[in-house]
Amino acid sequence: MENCYDRGYRTLKQIDGEAGEKIIASLHDIAPDFARYVIEFPFGEIYPRPGLDLPTRELATVAALTAMGTAPGQLRVHLEGALNVGCTRQQIVEVIMQMAIFAGFPAALNGLAAAKEIFTHRDRRERVAA
Amino acid sequence: MENCYDRGYRTLKQIDGEAGEKIIASLHDIAPDFARYVIEFPFGEIYPRPGLDLPTRELATVAALTAMGTAPGQLRVHLEGALNVGCTRQQIVEVIMQMAIFAGFPAALNGLAAAKEIFTHRDRRERVAA
Amino acid sequence: MENCYDRGYRTLKQIDGEAGEKIIASLHDIAPDFARYVIEFPFGEIYPRPGLDLPTRELATVAALTAMGTAPGQLRVHLEGALNVGCTRQQIVEVIMQMAIFAGFPAALNGLAAAKEIFTHRDRRERVAA
Amino acid sequence: MENCYDRGYRTLKQIDGEAGEKIIASLHDIAPDFARYVIEFPFGEIYPRPGLDLPTRELATVAALTAMGTAPGQLRVHLEGALNVGCTRQQIVEVIMQMAIFAGFPAALNGLAAAKEIFTHRDRRERVAA
Amino acid sequence: MENCYDRGYRTLKQIDGEAGEKIIASLHDIAPDFARYVIEFPFGEIYPRPGLDLPTRELATVAALTAMGTAPGQLRVHLEGALNVGCTRQQIVEVIMQMAIFAGFPAALNGLAAAKEIFTHRDRRERVAA
Amino acid sequence: MENCYDRGYRTLKQIDGEAGEKIIASLHDIAPDFARYVIEFPFGEIYPRPGLDLPTRELATVAALTAMGTAPGQLRVHLEGALNVGCTRQQIVEVIMQMAIFAGFPAALNGLAAAKEIFTHRDRRERVAA
Repeated sequence: MENCYDRGYRTLKQIDGEAGEKIIASLHDIAPDFARYVIEFPFGEIYPRPGLDLPTRELATVAALTAMGTAPGQLRVHLEGALNVGCTRQQIVEVIMQMAIFAGFPAALNGLAAAKEIFTHRDRRERVAA
Repeated sequence: MENCYDRGYRTLKQIDGEAGEKIIASLHDIAPDFARYVIEFPFGEIYPRPGLDLPTRELATVAALTAMGTAPGQLRVHLEGALNVGCTRQQIVEVIMQMAIFAGFPAALNGLAAAKEIFTHRDRRERVAA
Repeated sequence: MENCYDRGYRTLKQIDGEAGEKIIASLHDIAPDFARYVIEFPFGEIYPRPGLDLPTRELATVAALTAMGTAPGQLRVHLEGALNVGCTRQQIVEVIMQMAIFAGFPAALNGLAAAKEIFTHRDRRERVAA
Repeated sequence: MENCYDRGYRTLKQIDGEAGEKIIASLHDIAPDFARYVIEFPFGEIYPRPGLDLPTRELATVAALTAMGTAPGQLRVHLEGALNVGCTRQQIVEVIMQMAIFAGFPAALNGLAAAKEIFTHRDRRERVAA
Repeated sequence: MENCYDRGYRTLKQIDGEAGEKIIASLHDIAPDFARYVIEFPFGEIYPRPGLDLPTRELATVAALTAMGTAPGQLRVHLEGALNVGCTRQQIVEVIMQMAIFAGFPAALNGLAAAKEIFTHRDRRERVAA
Repeated sequence: MENCYDRGYRTLKQIDGEAGEKIIASLHDIAPDFARYVIEFPFGEIYPRPGLDLPTRELATVAALTAMGTAPGQLRVHLEGALNVGCTRQQIVEVIMQMAIFAGFPAALNGLAAAKEIFTHRDRRERVAA
């Protein structure tokens, strides 16, 4: 049976890909235990739980980070994550626009600007890879 | 063709039921135009948009309101709303627990307490109706 | 020349009336120095500054407290304060509705509910006094 | 009679000038409907309402965005907006300083830094135009 | 060697006492796994770490919850927790007052009101026990 | 006897060093009175109070600013401040990690990234000075 750390590491890579590995690496010299917590709790315990599929989880995360407005870097990571686990661009844009209702227009505008940046970045990456 | 206000009023009733009508009624003497805005923008423009189904929209709203922690009344209305449009209790609980990652354990604990309250209330209502 | 404490105490009474004195009294046994800070800094230094009249200051405060959503008690005190220094009910309602743009509909709805409560309370007090 | 979109577009240009048009343009390829919502709801419905003049509305917005601290870009747009509709620099600085009371010194310091940036930028622009 | 759950349960009881057990019990029927997470991550991993003593940890928590203003229930639990692990009332009051600088006077006033409530409650409990 | 301004100026220099003087200088042309308030209230009244030593005060500040996530510049100033008054790097890292519990993992990750930046910056400065 897979342990919590291994399950977390696998899920982190599935959702966040390279960005996830960079976050873990960046913690190496300042707070190595925190890297373990990130892997074990969010990605080892919460994300792999049954009862909610990964695309819906990522849309919920995009909603929350857009509404909070205090973690623009993590919003970008999870916009990539949402696309990585199969959310469509349309779904992501819809969720962000909806946040105008609950957190105001600036929160939604900042979320849309982040999404535009990520989408453009991916288009470029894909063109380079093609 | 249905206009924005009518579409909004119908969607508000579909999602929030009686609670939605109470919110609208409560605005009558203080800010009647604001009742129209609530109907037209969130429920007339955003919620009925294609590209994201109502249950996913309500889970995104539950995520955002749990994470923000500043609108406990509206969280309760949207917990009912999520159930009204077909979300399962398990999905709702999963989304709230996930918010511990992004907004901290107190936010998730307060969200779970609200969900428990709403679920209990609905069980009681259903027993009375039976 | 009036010192900072006296100017603050006078301004606090002018804006918050009885509610202000209750706040000061409530600090007596837990943090008496904090009562002095409340009087000296917000009400002794900031509020009496030239360059912005008291009604505009109170509308700015109502805007901020409505948008933040974390201090419902202080919002109520400043709704009274706004009326005490001559803001009209219409101006207050306009400012709160405007916050839907910047902080979302729940923030504005909670602000309007608070305003309704304060207006009703004042109507009753005035009827009793009449 | 002017419709909501036209009134909104006119008001957006009056308040935000070029910055407003840039925001609308930036939404073109990611969320064109959201551009319409920005024009219709904040600028078509809320801002042109009677009962509160534009300078007071903009001071309330500066207050809220300074206090929230989550939308530094929009704060800059509305600092320009406040000046565009006739607020004085002194009024703006007074409102921002006042936010130290309600949202803390860092919020006010960040607001003052943004104001300084906008004022300097405008001085330079005016010198170039002269 | 004590495992993470046992260490967490012991630490939770040491800090939060009865209130901690109530929180765990309240999760029993809505989200039993979340009770395990609360025990394992905050109290099993973070709080027992070396490098910072429990009283300083609790003062940091009181600071954060006072400043955030979105979790008044958890602030109360940690005010009790701070006293349980040996913080003095004076230290707690100092930390809360300090938050006026960073999160504004309303946040500090609400924190002081919570502290007053907890201190009064404990005085009464001690008088009854005597 | 030292007056409030002098005590504040001395405390500001003790905690924030050069960064504190820069903040004061930056206010010179936009809001000179606000420089006086920063010196008199946070640093003249609150920080020098007895009942809580400076290192604990700075850890509480780091906790609050990490949890709020809206003042990254001030967090950096107070990370330096914490080191200046004798907090260890380990204590600072522990307080920031703890914020994952109360404000979520993104808040803690952003706090750790800020701490890493400050620590690296100081190491370089010390190497240059050596």
